[in-house]
Amino acid sequence: MTISKIRIAAASAFAIALFNPAHLYAVPALPNPVQIALKDDPYAWDIIEGLTTEVGQRQGGTEAEARARKWAVEKLTEMQFANVRIETYQMPTWVRGEESASILSPFPQKLAVTALGNSGSTGEAGLEADIVYFPTLAALKAVPDGSLKGKIAFVSHAMKPTQDGSSYGAFGPARFVGPDIAAKKGAAAIVIRSAGTDMHRNPHTGNTNFSEGVKPIPAGALSLPDAENLERILRRTPRGQTVKMKLKLTPRNIGMQESGNVISEVKGSNPDLPPILIACHLDSWDLGTGAIDDGAGCGIVTAAAMHVKQYSRPKRTIRLLWAGAEEVGVWGGKAYAVKHKDEPHALTMESDFGADRVWRVDFKLPESAKSLSDSITADLSELGIARGTAEAGDGADVGPIREAQNLAAIDLAQDGTRYFDLHHTPDDTLDKIDKTQLRQNVAAWTAVLLRLSNYEGDLKMPPKEMKP
Amino acid sequence: MTISKIRIAAASAFAIALFNPAHLYAVPALPNPVQIALKDDPYAWDIIEGLTTEVGQRQGGTEAEARARKWAVEKLTEMQFANVRIETYQMPTWVRGEESASILSPFPQKLAVTALGNSGSTGEAGLEADIVYFPTLAALKAVPDGSLKGKIAFVSHAMKPTQDGSSYGAFGPARFVGPDIAAKKGAAAIVIRSAGTDMHRNPHTGNTNFSEGVKPIPAGALSLPDAENLERILRRTPRGQTVKMKLKLTPRNIGMQESGNVISEVKGSNPDLPPILIACHLDSWDLGTGAIDDGAGCGIVTAAAMHVKQYSRPKRTIRLLWAGAEEVGVWGGKAYAVKHKDEPHALTMESDFGADRVWRVDFKLPESAKSLSDSITADLSELGIARGTAEAGDGADVGPIREAQNLAAIDLAQDGTRYFDLHHTPDDTLDKIDKTQLRQNVAAWTAVLLRLSNYEGDLKMPPKEMKP
Repeated sequence: MTISKIRIAAASAFAIALFNPAHLYAVPALPNPVQIALKDDPYAWDIIEGLTTEVGQRQGGTEAEARARKWAVEKLTEMQFANVRIETYQMPTWVRGEESASILSPFPQKLAVTALGNSGSTGEAGLEADIVYFPTLAALKAVPDGSLKGKIAFVSHAMKPTQDGSSYGAFGPARFVGPDIAAKKGAAAIVIRSAGTDMHRNPHTGNTNFSEGVKPIPAGALSLPDAENLERILRRTPRGQTVKMKLKLTPRNIGMQESGNVISEVKGSNPDLPPILIACHLDSWDLGTGAIDDGAGCGIVTAAAMHVKQYSRPKRTIRLLWAGAEEVGVWGGKAYAVKHKDEPHALTMESDFGADRVWRVDFKLPESAKSLSDSITADLSELGIARGTAEAGDGADVGPIREAQNLAAIDLAQDGTRYFDLHHTPDDTLDKIDKTQLRQNVAAWTAVLLRLSNYEGDLKMPPKEMKP
Repeated sequence: MTISKIRIAAASAFAIALFNPAHLYAVPALPNPVQIALKDDPYAWDIIEGLTTEVGQRQGGTEAEARARKWAVEKLTEMQFANVRIETYQMPTWVRGEESASILSPFPQKLAVTALGNSGSTGEAGLEADIVYFPTLAALKAVPDGSLKGKIAFVSHAMKPTQDGSSYGAFGPARFVGPDIAAKKGAAAIVIRSAGTDMHRNPHTGNTNFSEGVKPIPAGALSLPDAENLERILRRTPRGQTVKMKLKLTPRNIGMQESGNVISEVKGSNPDLPPILIACHLDSWDLGTGAIDDGAGCGIVTAAAMHVKQYSRPKRTIRLLWAGAEEVGVWGGKAYAVKHKDEPHALTMESDFGADRVWRVDFKLPESAKSLSDSITADLSELGIARGTAEAGDGADVGPIREAQNLAAIDLAQDGTRYFDLHHTPDDTLDKIDKTQLRQNVAAWTAVLLRLSNYEGDLKMPPKEMKP
């Protein structure tokens, strides 16, 4: 569907809503732009479909991400956002090579593996070594330094799904720091059970980080079924025998490459009010097409801004940040914070947790803005969203500027129950997006942006207390 | 769990059931061996776990299948089946090579592809050609001969799940004969939407067949998400431009190789009664570990035979056929029919449709055996299984001997709703087996085998009527 057709359809729906005589008797609980977003939003899907189909994977620092920026500028221009521009920066870039894993003995078979970001290389010849099994990261940490010399460590910490995504914090470290720890213990390589919650032969990639001075070892993630199979292989191996694996991972560092943020705006009528910064990230991991991570986020925030732009006259500017290179180190978010450090900002929000329904809203606002949070809470309750008690501050890409300027924030928490089924896998594709839940997200964001962009009070946070 | 421990546990359960005083007041509706199978069967899972873990994939004609035969002989011997043996034969063997597909223009990206069995090779250099899209196989059939010269045909017939698996008959032909038809129209290659019902980046392989005299063209299956992405790419490609794909498939024919059937028996007490032949297939496709196709079938039929052997004194011999090389051309089933053509058989049954619950039983029995089918129907009704009206005769592996000898048959139809989510994909792994439904299968088979192995009536079918 083209944008002009979309606009006509949406405008007609709005006209019908406005002139429906039922409105004489019952004022709708939600502002009309929110109702339109909920029932008929075409923008979010159009953006996600476009990005995943016309660009596909778009890893930070690669030519695919550059094509995604070009695509983004064309789309945002077509949608008539203001000040559409690319802000480039340079970043170190790691790219995947060949990857394979197989058990050589006692039960020869192939396993599905993928390299973690920043993994070292086994070289073309691959690496053959015995497996040493660790059921948890704690077990890996517990063995003496040097004890893994010449071995492949296998950490099989089994992640569980949680609605709020908190299990990523509990189980993710096997990926985040497991390879660094194994390297320090002398391991030749490491394979982990993917930090994921599905049962498909699609391993979950994602960055791992080695400490200063530690030489990166080859670090792979096995798909969940393969990790369970390897556990069974270990259990069924006769006493006295070892399990020998051949691992081949040939990623490379290709040095500094260009990446960039795509920025655009909905101009507010009052130039004295600092802008609201809303973000998603444009890059994706290379295995899937980046539908839930984070095409969905760009679709959601942009569609909501579009509804505000079309059906209201915002006083405060809304700035959209489609950040570059989030997955591989939040390079876009960091570059934004450096470049815009001297500009005032009012508040940050980010969408980067798929496209399933929003179930909770959290705030970080000055005391003076109680009426704002109350009216947002009231609007969102109509969408089945409850107020939480956590301090808001989500979003990797807005993190650096939020921290630097101590900014207010609002978080719309999405249902993450199935997010880690798909996260960083080949399976992150358009078909995983539920259109009804996607529209609920757009409606929630529209509701929040309508309130925020018309709020003229001060949103400055009091200075942080210094830790003693 | 070892077999000796399994036997003690099961025997104890049986003893408890026998001497439970409740039995003085209420005779259980199902024979005790069936109840034991339903509640506590350990054998089916043990076989499926063993095959998928200690052997893994076991494609017909390869050394992996030879390892599976060795494994099977050890397992069946350990379980004390009689006359455990391998019957070998020679078969032509096709093996997978490298495989990749990518869109070169207008939207460059990789697609997940796998070669179909018997596919031709693109050669090491791969093949670059324009895509010609066909929404159905009928559309492909409709174009003139020679019209696809130099093109890659893309047939995207979308299969739907059905409980009885009937949609495989409707949508499977895109795979079975699509490549042959495309070759005859002059196509350089073909890619099809996988004959499957999931939405994961795991393409479905499976044999395709080229007519005598037709040179096999490269023939690949795209994963379902990739096929849908390619449809969107075609829809979004500006008028006047073509979609160009690079396809690399390098499978090879490695000539005649040894394969074999593994045969074993539960000896009946009356040698005058012809045996019941129950089958599964030992080989699998190479992408997964062959849990549902057909480790499950071997687990089910063998566990049921084990319950009959342990807890009853069958009059009629039960012969187990773990057939070789089913996927790649039913070579085992054909070899069995040739080798055993002069031996009498009473009836055939086969389990080769996953491990989900049995929901229907169909019969092909002589009129004289009405009491048999009625008593089986009564037993199975206790397991939630209804009697159907179709003529029985399932099972590719027992097909050749059944046809040659016009044998009676009983089919236990399994729920196939999710079977084609997994069929012939990397995702056919142990974790997909539902233990509760697996045990219901074992119980149903045990119930049928108990009745059959104690039925002394004649099971000969009347001669087939000659077609005029």
